[in-house]
Amino acid sequence: MIDYNSFGVVGGDRRQIALAESIASDGYTVYAFGFDTINFQKGVIKAELDEIAAKCENIILPLPVTADGKYLNTHYSEKKTPLDDTFAEYMRNKTVFGGMMGKLFLTSELWDGIDTYDYYTREDFAVKNTVPTAEGALEIAMREYAGTINGSNCLVAGYGRIGKVLAWMLRGIGAKVTVSARRTSDLAWVELFGYQAVKTDDICDRDQYDLIFNTIPALVFNRRMLSKAREGTILIDLASAPGGVDYEAAEKLGIRVIKALSLPGRVAPKAAGEIIKNTIYNIMEE
Amino acid sequence: MIDYNSFGVVGGDRRQIALAESIASDGYTVYAFGFDTINFQKGVIKAELDEIAAKCENIILPLPVTADGKYLNTHYSEKKTPLDDTFAEYMRNKTVFGGMMGKLFLTSELWDGIDTYDYYTREDFAVKNTVPTAEGALEIAMREYAGTINGSNCLVAGYGRIGKVLAWMLRGIGAKVTVSARRTSDLAWVELFGYQAVKTDDICDRDQYDLIFNTIPALVFNRRMLSKAREGTILIDLASAPGGVDYEAAEKLGIRVIKALSLPGRVAPKAAGEIIKNTIYNIMEE
Amino acid sequence: MIDYNSFGVVGGDRRQIALAESIASDGYTVYAFGFDTINFQKGVIKAELDEIAAKCENIILPLPVTADGKYLNTHYSEKKTPLDDTFAEYMRNKTVFGGMMGKLFLTSELWDGIDTYDYYTREDFAVKNTVPTAEGALEIAMREYAGTINGSNCLVAGYGRIGKVLAWMLRGIGAKVTVSARRTSDLAWVELFGYQAVKTDDICDRDQYDLIFNTIPALVFNRRMLSKAREGTILIDLASAPGGVDYEAAEKLGIRVIKALSLPGRVAPKAAGEIIKNTIYNIMEE
Amino acid sequence: MIDYNSFGVVGGDRRQIALAESIASDGYTVYAFGFDTINFQKGVIKAELDEIAAKCENIILPLPVTADGKYLNTHYSEKKTPLDDTFAEYMRNKTVFGGMMGKLFLTSELWDGIDTYDYYTREDFAVKNTVPTAEGALEIAMREYAGTINGSNCLVAGYGRIGKVLAWMLRGIGAKVTVSARRTSDLAWVELFGYQAVKTDDICDRDQYDLIFNTIPALVFNRRMLSKAREGTILIDLASAPGGVDYEAAEKLGIRVIKALSLPGRVAPKAAGEIIKNTIYNIMEE
Repeated sequence: MIDYNSFGVVGGDRRQIALAESIASDGYTVYAFGFDTINFQKGVIKAELDEIAAKCENIILPLPVTADGKYLNTHYSEKKTPLDDTFAEYMRNKTVFGGMMGKLFLTSELWDGIDTYDYYTREDFAVKNTVPTAEGALEIAMREYAGTINGSNCLVAGYGRIGKVLAWMLRGIGAKVTVSARRTSDLAWVELFGYQAVKTDDICDRDQYDLIFNTIPALVFNRRMLSKAREGTILIDLASAPGGVDYEAAEKLGIRVIKALSLPGRVAPKAAGEIIKNTIYNIMEE
Repeated sequence: MIDYNSFGVVGGDRRQIALAESIASDGYTVYAFGFDTINFQKGVIKAELDEIAAKCENIILPLPVTADGKYLNTHYSEKKTPLDDTFAEYMRNKTVFGGMMGKLFLTSELWDGIDTYDYYTREDFAVKNTVPTAEGALEIAMREYAGTINGSNCLVAGYGRIGKVLAWMLRGIGAKVTVSARRTSDLAWVELFGYQAVKTDDICDRDQYDLIFNTIPALVFNRRMLSKAREGTILIDLASAPGGVDYEAAEKLGIRVIKALSLPGRVAPKAAGEIIKNTIYNIMEE
Repeated sequence: MIDYNSFGVVGGDRRQIALAESIASDGYTVYAFGFDTINFQKGVIKAELDEIAAKCENIILPLPVTADGKYLNTHYSEKKTPLDDTFAEYMRNKTVFGGMMGKLFLTSELWDGIDTYDYYTREDFAVKNTVPTAEGALEIAMREYAGTINGSNCLVAGYGRIGKVLAWMLRGIGAKVTVSARRTSDLAWVELFGYQAVKTDDICDRDQYDLIFNTIPALVFNRRMLSKAREGTILIDLASAPGGVDYEAAEKLGIRVIKALSLPGRVAPKAAGEIIKNTIYNIMEE
Repeated sequence: MIDYNSFGVVGGDRRQIALAESIASDGYTVYAFGFDTINFQKGVIKAELDEIAAKCENIILPLPVTADGKYLNTHYSEKKTPLDDTFAEYMRNKTVFGGMMGKLFLTSELWDGIDTYDYYTREDFAVKNTVPTAEGALEIAMREYAGTINGSNCLVAGYGRIGKVLAWMLRGIGAKVTVSARRTSDLAWVELFGYQAVKTDDICDRDQYDLIFNTIPALVFNRRMLSKAREGTILIDLASAPGGVDYEAAEKLGIRVIKALSLPGRVAPKAAGEIIKNTIYNIMEE
């Protein structure tokens, strides 16, 4: 019999573990599949897919659901779970939440008839995820930079979601923060919040930085730009692949580049799990 | 011939390396002793004690000068340098700067006649050192706590120098900050800067914390106090030895305690070296 | 002969005076019309419209250009200047900047052939204008509230441009800030910047406020909502006409409402003039 | 019969009115003398001195108790109340709180035998009072300066209690803040909190300011110093009489000086009353 207050957490990494335990601590029944090597806290019951299909109303798939488009992303299981008609069949008549579901939908035509919600594409998810991303970047900066962030000259390249949070945190601990942007209205925001503003094209003309945080997913830090930076500068690249830095040129010029991807799941799995949970709750309330 | 613009950096760890290089980059001649395994940047010349004595006006000893009261603190040398009349003799007619010089003075009566300045006892040194200490504590918190600091409930126990900076930084990245203090005037400061204030005796009555930062060098977190804390709380103890926590009780109660000592030298040696340099410059100007 | 580096400032209030003087201090020649009672600082020359037409390349009209659609907005002149074909004729072959130009265009068909830019509709103008607006609201709050803003419970209703800046400033001086918004992503932003978040519908359920700042241009504070507010609360209404408050109900319920419109020009004319100038410079550069 | 939970509020201005009403709202019985023209809110009973003496355990005198040393400070009464043996007699066997009690003690020898507490000399009182003082200074700055505080160049001269709060608030709304101090340790604090630091002697050499806030009770802004400031600068003098500015020189040099004294009582009487109340409660608890 289906329990309308039950969740099936199917596959994933540490975020999904935190998510399952957090939902359980809210009083729901949680069944988990794909965590063979994990001992869950009270309230999360390990189960096979057929049992989950029989009992749960809501299914939560991981972020991303799959890496290769063939198997479910199950970080804590030796056994591979193919994504096919059998898998999709289990999901029929469920409400299915997942992150980056595009490849999943190609694995079976049954998905056309299933109620799905991609939490990864939600604006509230993206906003909340800036926090573990920005803190992860700060932690890297603290670990790698031999000076203190307080008092250092930092450039945040790009004033999108992550740039906004990162600049705010850096100022909050006393760094001297410059933010680059392209639009005049963004530059106006930058100045009024107390940062130095610089146009993206003039990034390295104005000042010399101890730390550069790149959030722009385009090759802004090309050879020409990097050649103006100070030797010894640390550049933390937060832009999604292929990233925003000419790595080869950077190495030659003595600029140390640190690629920082997927920070939320790595630096703050519990927070990342909570964020997925709250996004799903928001979807369910709407 | 003595060069009045020359410094001898005698012994120490990474801070002293940064210090030597930083002084050199200000245009002074720097001679360094006790760094056999180190390749300095341009401007720092390795030398023996007699050469330093012959050439330098100012001598900088490490922090601490000595651990055991017998040998110089030389982290990057295999050879031991005894602190005795011979050593003191080299320092005659110099201006000698050092950190925690008490034990040094017991090693030779010659020290009575030498001009010495203990930078460690300076208020400006102590203030500046709060920055790498607080950032080091933040870095530990970010690494060890599975949530994000932003949005977490943090307690800063004690509103001395380190407490002031730590509370300010935590609020600056969006934590919910409670600060404990004993004096009503300190509690007034705490409230006006936007933190929750709690009397030291009531620390664990008011709220439950994700992270506790102890800065009080007294056994505040005894068994009784710890028994009120939430299981899973992380307690970062910044108080100098013997620290402010009953470790045994904490372990039994499921409170994770992280002892965080000597953070400046470990997490931000370059910054720590700069701080020593600037303190010495301040002394020389006075 | 036309001077390509000259500006004609035609009509306006204190903002336009500041604007004229600020452009002059940048080294341009500035002719001003419609300021009979004003003595300008060095560099601004009073002139009639025909002289301005003969000499200037760029014309700057006020904000708003006209109130009634018939006459130019000339706050500092006894004489009325009709907006008609004659006026438009003077503007031919010029670059004309103005604020809220809609009514102006109805006064002559000649405007169809004139190069015009409405600085009021620019995003960078709107962003910069939040600053004098938010400071004006703060000043009113400080003057009218018998307590201190520091430590007070403030609600900012709405998280648009003004809400963002106002909330940030209120937290910056130590108020306890709650922000209301409708979208879950905005509520996520609100929480991560350290404010309490509340859904617009639940505004007055959660907490009781000393000060409410309304920025929502819709009747959010109706009788039902106001009846939940605490007597003595001060409500500063920043929403443009007709405003967001049922004034009659407020009065009966003992809620003091202060209508705060057109703050930039009133509280910070110099800043407001600079903002218009910089917006025009941005337009010219594009 | 004496009521141990009763307070007599004897004389004062708007702060004492707020104080009386605030104590009443805490559930105590409050008798007030010297407020003939005032209608108190529920819970405050007007009474003569003999009645207060008969009924109250705790007496609260105003701040200051007296201006001339002869009569009680009664801002809301036409009738003068002499400070003499008769007055002191009423206070026998009471706990008497007052602000600046020095002159009072000279009016009768009976005071030697009375239990008195000067709340004005308390550190917690002084700290809390910085808030209305700093906000009052901000309000003046916002009213008088034609630009916005956000983005303006501000100097806070002196890093004592008021300087600390004012600098923090100014940065909190986005001003560019420089703080002057004499001690190297204070300059270290200034820098780590994100302000520019300048030695008091070099105040006007470094930068030019839109607004100067003086908190130093010594003639720092003498003719020589003022001659370096920019014409048009606004100087808000918060230092107690005789103040820290050569007013005559300032006028000649085009520096506008605004003397801002006794801000708490004037700009935030309710807050000021609360501060007195909380200080008295703190005293009673100790």
